[in-house]
Amino acid sequence: MTASNQKDIRKQFGERLRYLRLIRELSQEDLAHLCNLDRSYIGGVERGQRNVSLLNIKKIADALCVSPKEFFDE
Amino acid sequence: MTASNQKDIRKQFGERLRYLRLIRELSQEDLAHLCNLDRSYIGGVERGQRNVSLLNIKKIADALCVSPKEFFDE
Repeated sequence: MTASNQKDIRKQFGERLRYLRLIRELSQEDLAHLCNLDRSYIGGVERGQRNVSLLNIKKIADALCVSPKEFFDE
Repeated sequence: MTASNQKDIRKQFGERLRYLRLIRELSQEDLAHLCNLDRSYIGGVERGQRNVSLLNIKKIADALCVSPKEFFDE
């Protein structure tokens, strides 16, 4: 297993989310509003501090108009 | 948004997990042992009854030697 495989999946998810949000020029607050989640929750997810589960992955993906699998690109 | 996008992500995840497990000829018990989770939890995930979160997605992916993104193929 390579070093990149060992990276915490929460960190990896958070970094991808931040990237996907920023290329859309959305603030954390914009995104939180779009997916009906709290801005502080979105911030925690982006910092890799939240163990996000399927239903919230789907909410966030829908808000960004992406497939959930895009959060798992390496 | 199409009908398939509306499918419950828990069901979609569970079906993909079952598929990926069966092509490896693993029982739920085998897989549970490989990822150090309970067999009944794996069963619940496959039935779309569990809101699986990132750390368990990673555990299950590692046990199957797949990328987490493979659970989100449509």
